[in-house]
Amino acid sequence: MTGPVLSLPHPADFPPPPSPSQRAAWSEADRAARPARVERLRRRLAQEGLDAYFGIRSEHMRYLTGFVLRDGEDRLAGNSGRFLVSADDVVVMADSRYRLQAEAEAGGARVAAVAYDLAADWPGLVKGLGARRVGAESALIGHQLWRGLEAAAPDVELVEVAGWVEADRATKEPAETERIRAACAVADRALAGIVRRIRPGVTEQELAMALEWEMRTGGADALAFPIACLAGPNAALPHGSPGQREVRPGQVLLFDFGAMVDGYRSDMTRTLFVEEPSRRDEEVYRVVLAAQQAALDLLARAARGECPSPSGRAADAAARSVIEEAGYGPNFGHSTGHGIGLATHELPTLGRTSGDEPLAGPTVFSVEPGIYLDDETGVRIEDLVEFDPAAGRFAILTGFPKELLVLAV
Amino acid sequence: MTGPVLSLPHPADFPPPPSPSQRAAWSEADRAARPARVERLRRRLAQEGLDAYFGIRSEHMRYLTGFVLRDGEDRLAGNSGRFLVSADDVVVMADSRYRLQAEAEAGGARVAAVAYDLAADWPGLVKGLGARRVGAESALIGHQLWRGLEAAAPDVELVEVAGWVEADRATKEPAETERIRAACAVADRALAGIVRRIRPGVTEQELAMALEWEMRTGGADALAFPIACLAGPNAALPHGSPGQREVRPGQVLLFDFGAMVDGYRSDMTRTLFVEEPSRRDEEVYRVVLAAQQAALDLLARAARGECPSPSGRAADAAARSVIEEAGYGPNFGHSTGHGIGLATHELPTLGRTSGDEPLAGPTVFSVEPGIYLDDETGVRIEDLVEFDPAAGRFAILTGFPKELLVLAV
Repeated sequence: MTGPVLSLPHPADFPPPPSPSQRAAWSEADRAARPARVERLRRRLAQEGLDAYFGIRSEHMRYLTGFVLRDGEDRLAGNSGRFLVSADDVVVMADSRYRLQAEAEAGGARVAAVAYDLAADWPGLVKGLGARRVGAESALIGHQLWRGLEAAAPDVELVEVAGWVEADRATKEPAETERIRAACAVADRALAGIVRRIRPGVTEQELAMALEWEMRTGGADALAFPIACLAGPNAALPHGSPGQREVRPGQVLLFDFGAMVDGYRSDMTRTLFVEEPSRRDEEVYRVVLAAQQAALDLLARAARGECPSPSGRAADAAARSVIEEAGYGPNFGHSTGHGIGLATHELPTLGRTSGDEPLAGPTVFSVEPGIYLDDETGVRIEDLVEFDPAAGRFAILTGFPKELLVLAV
Repeated sequence: MTGPVLSLPHPADFPPPPSPSQRAAWSEADRAARPARVERLRRRLAQEGLDAYFGIRSEHMRYLTGFVLRDGEDRLAGNSGRFLVSADDVVVMADSRYRLQAEAEAGGARVAAVAYDLAADWPGLVKGLGARRVGAESALIGHQLWRGLEAAAPDVELVEVAGWVEADRATKEPAETERIRAACAVADRALAGIVRRIRPGVTEQELAMALEWEMRTGGADALAFPIACLAGPNAALPHGSPGQREVRPGQVLLFDFGAMVDGYRSDMTRTLFVEEPSRRDEEVYRVVLAAQQAALDLLARAARGECPSPSGRAADAAARSVIEEAGYGPNFGHSTGHGIGLATHELPTLGRTSGDEPLAGPTVFSVEPGIYLDDETGVRIEDLVEFDPAAGRFAILTGFPKELLVLAV
């Protein structure tokens, strides 16, 4: 039996929130990096024989133009923030509500007034760029809009484009990784700040609210995504919502959460125990921890040059094989990891169907195996890692301990 | 000059948050209403000669199937929650992470396991329904997925469908309006709860955080959308984000915010003054208030049977003409109102390009004219109204006063 951990993590164990001058430096780094980001896209346009790129993904907007929509605002913003990049121009669209914001944030871009019906404005927009072949984000652009744009400007060819900016964004600039690291620290401190409040009888929702408050008053601009705080059998739902279930002795308590710092997100999962775990839960925990360690070890060896950089599939297999060998293969249904940055889920992917190309850096992704027993229990352990094999660099960005942590009550 | 209002609104002026038994009654009302909602869709399918409906809009998921994705979770859920409705079946898709949730929430539906690549699962899904012609939400389904589905099952015709469920959702069931009304009260109470904290020197962000906390500890399950709290010249940005700007004497302070109660949203805007407004700001306020009142009066007359129910365009014109006559026409760029319910923006629309058909009830929408002077000031006043001309019903759901409110410091 594992006794209670003697010293619980404390917020002061982790780095403090970023200072205003640190934030100013990041803004400046973005401003300085944006021309090179746009230039990469322009080279790709030239290679593919396209005159312009039509983007609507809000993370791409921010990455390439500087225009920021808060999470949830994209549902209300209509066409505002959508953008066109040609060899000579960057055009950011804005309706009357967003014009001043676009002018302030998208320095260097031309702001074009658009109304609700983008198809009506489309011929003027593409003609203004002299564009005849426009690459467009076909994964995000609705089929209806796509057909509307084709009909509005029949002489302008829309070409399906997928993954271009996504691939660029998988490679992280130093100031991007710094912000993910800062977001990890905000999340670490927040969990350390609430861990003493965990008692039998407190509800998932109460803990989720407390954790959110710690993050948002502790350096986060927002949550990275809705918090999962799941007690006992609820932890078998890998993406369940916190509810009225109370923490009970002898059960797991799973937190999956992240902070956003200056647009960049963190993501971590810890599964804690409230009083002594059952032998079954303890075994499951040790299998998951060993699985995660197997993947981390592989990545660390690759960064030290002791083996080639693994593919996302190989990194997944490193974790998955440990779980399979312990007999829990069918209980680990999701992928081992995903890239993270301006979006919570981005490239690269560490999964069973990921490609065979070696993971390239500098990049940041999660390593998060789990085992879920329906209606009984669930354990997941998730860290973010920075991986840059060419530079010999591998670092775990999540700081909260992951030894089996038993909260005595 | 307007003196300070003698009695500031107090949280106790507004109805208390909904009780657990009230919430249970709403859940039960949804369960009871869902078959009729699905039946309406099936009648439409039959009329149009379609075998099935493929839906991906998260509000439609909840409305028709009961499967709930929290705001922000839709970005992570992949295909989970997407659904098919045929004459005999409702199928809710779920990957391994969401299977248990789908089974628990989507009572009466069949849960189908799907992986990341929906096109791979598509032939089996539609074959399982015996469907050859499938209506699909072409506004939301990405062009890439649309083409992928067509290629995966060439013998299954995808037909563009838009606005069907949206139109149904514009008509509100009593238990839907009750929840919007409850969400309005949560928002009213929250603003009343922070109004005494408004002082020169406090920042927009601090007030936005305080307002959010009041809502989320006062009955809201979540925010309806990100809060706008905009001081002085920032109020000229109708959708700006709260920042480090401090409240200053003699300037406007604009709050645009809403609560979510059991999935249903509210939306309100109040523009307050911190110490004496300038004569210009006071005039602008009075014009906006008169514009809003003109639209409300028109709707009230229609509900009393004194005139036909106006179109969305006519209701917009009623407010807009007041602003135009005062010389501020160019400073009111957005629409006068929008429907609200499971989504913040839904049908009907009250705008310059809205249709000529009379507004039909029972429905709920906002009335929110505004005037924005770039880099100087902005005023908007927004209430939600319940409108049901056939039943002679018109009610303003937002309770917070809208007389020009001057906060003395």
